[in-house]
Amino acid sequence: MKFLFINGVNLNMTGTREKSVYGERSLEEINSEISAYFKNDECTFFQSNIEGEICSAIQRGNGYDGVILNAGAFTHYSIAIRDAISSIDTPVIEVHMSNVHAREDFRHTSVLSAVCRGVVLGFGKNSYILAAESFKL
Amino acid sequence: MKFLFINGVNLNMTGTREKSVYGERSLEEINSEISAYFKNDECTFFQSNIEGEICSAIQRGNGYDGVILNAGAFTHYSIAIRDAISSIDTPVIEVHMSNVHAREDFRHTSVLSAVCRGVVLGFGKNSYILAAESFKL
Amino acid sequence: MKFLFINGVNLNMTGTREKSVYGERSLEEINSEISAYFKNDECTFFQSNIEGEICSAIQRGNGYDGVILNAGAFTHYSIAIRDAISSIDTPVIEVHMSNVHAREDFRHTSVLSAVCRGVVLGFGKNSYILAAESFKL
Amino acid sequence: MKFLFINGVNLNMTGTREKSVYGERSLEEINSEISAYFKNDECTFFQSNIEGEICSAIQRGNGYDGVILNAGAFTHYSIAIRDAISSIDTPVIEVHMSNVHAREDFRHTSVLSAVCRGVVLGFGKNSYILAAESFKL
Amino acid sequence: MKFLFINGVNLNMTGTREKSVYGERSLEEINSEISAYFKNDECTFFQSNIEGEICSAIQRGNGYDGVILNAGAFTHYSIAIRDAISSIDTPVIEVHMSNVHAREDFRHTSVLSAVCRGVVLGFGKNSYILAAESFKL
Amino acid sequence: MKFLFINGVNLNMTGTREKSVYGERSLEEINSEISAYFKNDECTFFQSNIEGEICSAIQRGNGYDGVILNAGAFTHYSIAIRDAISSIDTPVIEVHMSNVHAREDFRHTSVLSAVCRGVVLGFGKNSYILAAESFKL
Amino acid sequence: MKFLFINGVNLNMTGTREKSVYGERSLEEINSEISAYFKNDECTFFQSNIEGEICSAIQRGNGYDGVILNAGAFTHYSIAIRDAISSIDTPVIEVHMSNVHAREDFRHTSVLSAVCRGVVLGFGKNSYILAAESFKL
Amino acid sequence: MKFLFINGVNLNMTGTREKSVYGERSLEEINSEISAYFKNDECTFFQSNIEGEICSAIQRGNGYDGVILNAGAFTHYSIAIRDAISSIDTPVIEVHMSNVHAREDFRHTSVLSAVCRGVVLGFGKNSYILAAESFKL
Amino acid sequence: MKFLFINGVNLNMTGTREKSVYGERSLEEINSEISAYFKNDECTFFQSNIEGEICSAIQRGNGYDGVILNAGAFTHYSIAIRDAISSIDTPVIEVHMSNVHAREDFRHTSVLSAVCRGVVLGFGKNSYILAAESFKL
Amino acid sequence: MKFLFINGVNLNMTGTREKSVYGERSLEEINSEISAYFKNDECTFFQSNIEGEICSAIQRGNGYDGVILNAGAFTHYSIAIRDAISSIDTPVIEVHMSNVHAREDFRHTSVLSAVCRGVVLGFGKNSYILAAESFKL
Amino acid sequence: MKFLFINGVNLNMTGTREKSVYGERSLEEINSEISAYFKNDECTFFQSNIEGEICSAIQRGNGYDGVILNAGAFTHYSIAIRDAISSIDTPVIEVHMSNVHAREDFRHTSVLSAVCRGVVLGFGKNSYILAAESFKL
Amino acid sequence: MKFLFINGVNLNMTGTREKSVYGERSLEEINSEISAYFKNDECTFFQSNIEGEICSAIQRGNGYDGVILNAGAFTHYSIAIRDAISSIDTPVIEVHMSNVHAREDFRHTSVLSAVCRGVVLGFGKNSYILAAESFKL
Repeated sequence: MKFLFINGVNLNMTGTREKSVYGERSLEEINSEISAYFKNDECTFFQSNIEGEICSAIQRGNGYDGVILNAGAFTHYSIAIRDAISSIDTPVIEVHMSNVHAREDFRHTSVLSAVCRGVVLGFGKNSYILAAESFKL
Repeated sequence: MKFLFINGVNLNMTGTREKSVYGERSLEEINSEISAYFKNDECTFFQSNIEGEICSAIQRGNGYDGVILNAGAFTHYSIAIRDAISSIDTPVIEVHMSNVHAREDFRHTSVLSAVCRGVVLGFGKNSYILAAESFKL
Repeated sequence: MKFLFINGVNLNMTGTREKSVYGERSLEEINSEISAYFKNDECTFFQSNIEGEICSAIQRGNGYDGVILNAGAFTHYSIAIRDAISSIDTPVIEVHMSNVHAREDFRHTSVLSAVCRGVVLGFGKNSYILAAESFKL
Repeated sequence: MKFLFINGVNLNMTGTREKSVYGERSLEEINSEISAYFKNDECTFFQSNIEGEICSAIQRGNGYDGVILNAGAFTHYSIAIRDAISSIDTPVIEVHMSNVHAREDFRHTSVLSAVCRGVVLGFGKNSYILAAESFKL
Repeated sequence: MKFLFINGVNLNMTGTREKSVYGERSLEEINSEISAYFKNDECTFFQSNIEGEICSAIQRGNGYDGVILNAGAFTHYSIAIRDAISSIDTPVIEVHMSNVHAREDFRHTSVLSAVCRGVVLGFGKNSYILAAESFKL
Repeated sequence: MKFLFINGVNLNMTGTREKSVYGERSLEEINSEISAYFKNDECTFFQSNIEGEICSAIQRGNGYDGVILNAGAFTHYSIAIRDAISSIDTPVIEVHMSNVHAREDFRHTSVLSAVCRGVVLGFGKNSYILAAESFKL
Repeated sequence: MKFLFINGVNLNMTGTREKSVYGERSLEEINSEISAYFKNDECTFFQSNIEGEICSAIQRGNGYDGVILNAGAFTHYSIAIRDAISSIDTPVIEVHMSNVHAREDFRHTSVLSAVCRGVVLGFGKNSYILAAESFKL
Repeated sequence: MKFLFINGVNLNMTGTREKSVYGERSLEEINSEISAYFKNDECTFFQSNIEGEICSAIQRGNGYDGVILNAGAFTHYSIAIRDAISSIDTPVIEVHMSNVHAREDFRHTSVLSAVCRGVVLGFGKNSYILAAESFKL
Repeated sequence: MKFLFINGVNLNMTGTREKSVYGERSLEEINSEISAYFKNDECTFFQSNIEGEICSAIQRGNGYDGVILNAGAFTHYSIAIRDAISSIDTPVIEVHMSNVHAREDFRHTSVLSAVCRGVVLGFGKNSYILAAESFKL
Repeated sequence: MKFLFINGVNLNMTGTREKSVYGERSLEEINSEISAYFKNDECTFFQSNIEGEICSAIQRGNGYDGVILNAGAFTHYSIAIRDAISSIDTPVIEVHMSNVHAREDFRHTSVLSAVCRGVVLGFGKNSYILAAESFKL
Repeated sequence: MKFLFINGVNLNMTGTREKSVYGERSLEEINSEISAYFKNDECTFFQSNIEGEICSAIQRGNGYDGVILNAGAFTHYSIAIRDAISSIDTPVIEVHMSNVHAREDFRHTSVLSAVCRGVVLGFGKNSYILAAESFKL
Repeated sequence: MKFLFINGVNLNMTGTREKSVYGERSLEEINSEISAYFKNDECTFFQSNIEGEICSAIQRGNGYDGVILNAGAFTHYSIAIRDAISSIDTPVIEVHMSNVHAREDFRHTSVLSAVCRGVVLGFGKNSYILAAESFKL
């Protein structure tokens, strides 16, 4: 299968910032572990701090079997990303490494969930793996 | 591993009610498929329409490696179940078969998520499987 | 016709509590009057203080022509009962003996009305009779 | 008995507009059916699109045994009609043909219910009949 | 001086309805007392239950030294009347016989006050007299 | 084409009131300019301060190709007018001469927009012309 | 008659601050004019910037026929002053020199009005005079 | 005197869960200490995780001098329990071991307080003792 | 033990105002009864209508074993008093003679509770006694 | 005249996504039709998924007679774009192809309207044409 | 230059209370440091726990080049202090030692900021110094 | 010391747009003045209209002693920027040239303040200077 993993704003700081929340591994290390887990599948990774580039990346999602999206802070206000998800046919899974519901109030609202197929959150790097795994069950 | 799967109110009607949302399989059939998937693990299933019995079931969760909880409608208002989750050490995963964020507004709020380890929703019966799978990664 | 009359929490205290609101007749006396009124129909009565038992009773509603439901205080917050109503094909009529809109603010909201066929409230014991009568017009 | 049936704004379009909600019968046909049902009673019918005329009609309600009021859209904001209801001694029953709670959010609030004796809604033309019937039980 | 006294919806019921709130005198009697009090001034009185007629009456206010307006229930939602007040140069005084702030919550908000010169409320028929008196100080 | 232009409450004061907002031309002058612009079409004009008369005018809209509606202050609360729009098949365009979003907060909400085909606002008398023009493109 | 005029916080700055709102006369000059107007009555004046001293002054109100209270900014939040008003039998009239409803949003709410006999606002120094005059009608 | 002590959902976990909040003693030990303190009075204890059973227990309260109720999480949403309290004549005292106002926001609201005689919270097991003591002063 | 009893605004009117709520005894009589009850302890009493003096009194609380505080109306908005409580080490108990939750809505919120050790309300003068008693258990 | 047409996020997907809402024509085709319609005027087109690039494009608007802006999802939250509009002298017209008020709730709010000259919405590609036409009337 | 430094309620406890927030220096020590820093300017210091005395102090501000105000808890609700600031011509700078936005929600709102020239917060004692420094740049 | 000054969206228009708010100097001139003021320190300046580029710039802040951030409109909704601030160790000071609290309501809320060290606003270009100065005290 072909998976597109998209990471939003500040996720390039994973392993650097707030290690108690996000763990000590860098995004590159996490991506490597995901690739290793899905070694028989084709995994593409994209990260940007720019909301519009996330939208453009999602728009290219039609060539994949599934999009796994961790939009970071954009999750809570980017109707632009929501509309990008609606504009493609490939199912998108919303993921978060941390349990956003156990953090600040403003992280309890996602403007994306309603147009995603499903949500997986709280399992660290395994959130990505479980989300992609959902396409194989 | 030992898993406790708890289903809340009206989930005994799965396969009967609102088939476009919940599919055509009964809860018993779903449970069988889960058992088959985790054939090397010990899976216990509990269902009740009574909030207090769900609390009591969760209180017994300490003997398991993980609790997978689909609280149904209780998800949205049962602080009692939230407190039951807080009262045990075993991690609890909140699951929903449907994407609750794509349904009525009152289903967008969960009073349970903040005290669960993680959330998996939107994958039909596979929500249970992915949630349990999270303990094995 | 076959009618199922379901009374929720504290309605077993009718005739005892707050007589200015609910009148002096006990629930048993009210049920008798309803049975007498519909003497050519089959009337079944159920009362429980336990929300989950109300849900289970509603789930059994498919064997009846109509369900007449006075959920009492559950009216205002039990999404569980709402989902139980949605899970059956038999139409459910929401009734209240008192005019709930003339009482405390929290009684002005019903989470059940949207999934019932209709609502009848404010006519004392006659609320039940008018609701059942609606199936015969 | 003497009944005054008052219909508010746009109800003159019944049978014309939104037939899936209001049915195919015109208001005149509905009124005829009501008169036929209560053939031993005196039924008076009034309709106006003008809020103030509805108020004036209600003010004349003291000569009747009961007023049956379908205020249409005025239900949701006309404190003027509410005050007109409070200004007479004859009991007023609020009725709606459709189940307003299953429609748009703004139709879930009635500023009239608190000063009416009761509410009957969701039974099509029979809402009027059940409301009037309540005076005969 | 020339005063225009405008009374809104249901004020024609004064002396009939809710006597504990509005007293036992009819609107005609109150108007007579006002005329007697201002016997050297020219007092014109207008009452209507129809919001649009109140607007039209206010639009004619430019020929007067002052408009004294008791809009009744329209006070709380008629932006139409607010705009009518803004459309003339003659100052308008908002009056209420009862202390609206000691009644239901929805009577605590006036959409008119911001565009009136002043407000006088709570003094029964004397609210009208004090409001008109304000033009003579 | 046949156009019905409907103007609501206080728009008969155009050219008189708040000239900085509405300009110096009277409604009659504006109507003349519109007629001149659409000299090959049939333009009918209606104005009333009475909400119910606006509803009745809209109900007669089925004989026209398009209804251009400036409801004035009614825009912000008249669910009655909203329902009148829904009751006909002819498309209705909501127009405002001023940019209502640049004025008081309560003018930012329209209860009508959702049931109109489109909205044109902020262009003075040209709002009417652009709205009618939309039927000719 | 014996009147007690109480002025709250910052009203000692009248004539100094925001002259476009409060006029050019000092509080002493205003008080003199009031005394002159009611030259056959006994007028007592009290001003303080301290909320608790306003409360104490009101508590001494029982020896007067009427209390005329301009609480200034305390109007909008001092439940303490509200309770002081409730603790005496002498009627209290709430006054404001400016039309508070035409100013900032937070000035539209009075926590005092509900326990006063009436309200007079918007007439400059004449607000005091009209309020006291109300006791003589 | 005869006291009925009722403990709601999850209070059977006292001494087990969140010891920093609830202390290390089990509910049985706490009950024993209460019995010892009121050794000349008759103390009855009841605990259930089921809301409806709490309601039924309260309904039986009429045989006691006082009911001391710690409803646990039900405090914050159970209108059913509120109504049960209203249905009996025996005074009910609401108690909490922890200071609920120093915890999560949703614990700051009690739907029960308004129909209880009083509230005692924040004193650990002594909350029960002080509440019962109130009947002896 | 050494207790400091602090009473806030208007409590000097106890026994005078609203006797149905506060009883017929004056604050002095109540203080005497408290002193008598705790005749082996040292009881100090302070009352002021001035919020800042209440703050200063609380700041002196460190010399006592406990502070019993009835802040009166200040309870609902005085963040100043809240901060004063936080500034000392001596535990403060919030008390009210009446059941504030059974009164107006604005009395249901306390800005003080979160920083007090506990709350006792609804027991008349005994609220003070039970609060002080809590230090002796 | 010189017009600058700016399209925001996801509008590059027009003709591809949600065809029932946006029609089957691509943005390029729409732009061609606009150019053809205004064949004697100079039309410049800009599209970006990046909010900041939209801001920069608007900042360059001073060289044009009018800016026609369809900000897409940014309409609902981009205060940055609002400020860009305020920073130039050229009038900006807000347009939408669909009737945003007939779609999800979050599309009913525009943070841009207040600083635009006018708004045109609901006419498909003709929304652009009518907006530009407004400069020629 | 002449500076007036005003400190509100509980700031007399600085160095005593919540040292992790406010540091270990007393207000007197802080004032000395400020005086030393501005040794060529005239610094006046005022502190009170009484809101009305803060107002009076601000009213005397016209004799100074600048007022530096730390209103403490009054910041969040004292419209009285806001009006005092508006009543003088001397610019007032709002300061806080702690970052109030990183503390409880109710500290995020200042009713004073809108009428101050500027705000400086989060720098401990240096907040005062930077605020005064602003007058010298 | 090494300072990084970051300016967000539309601040490149300073000196051009809304001169009454932002002054007549361009951003380049302001930056020059800042550099001149801190002539012995190392000042780096960055401006972008793109939110994600602001995030990336902040992420590079660890090499500086302090970051001075004027996020412009992003201040009010960019949780992305908030998270970027949290991801570095260098303290960030939030600055605004204008007093945002004296402008539109939506400018009163900052999603950034809670994670900054402090805030300086209202002093024009001197806001930047005072913020940087804070690192030198």
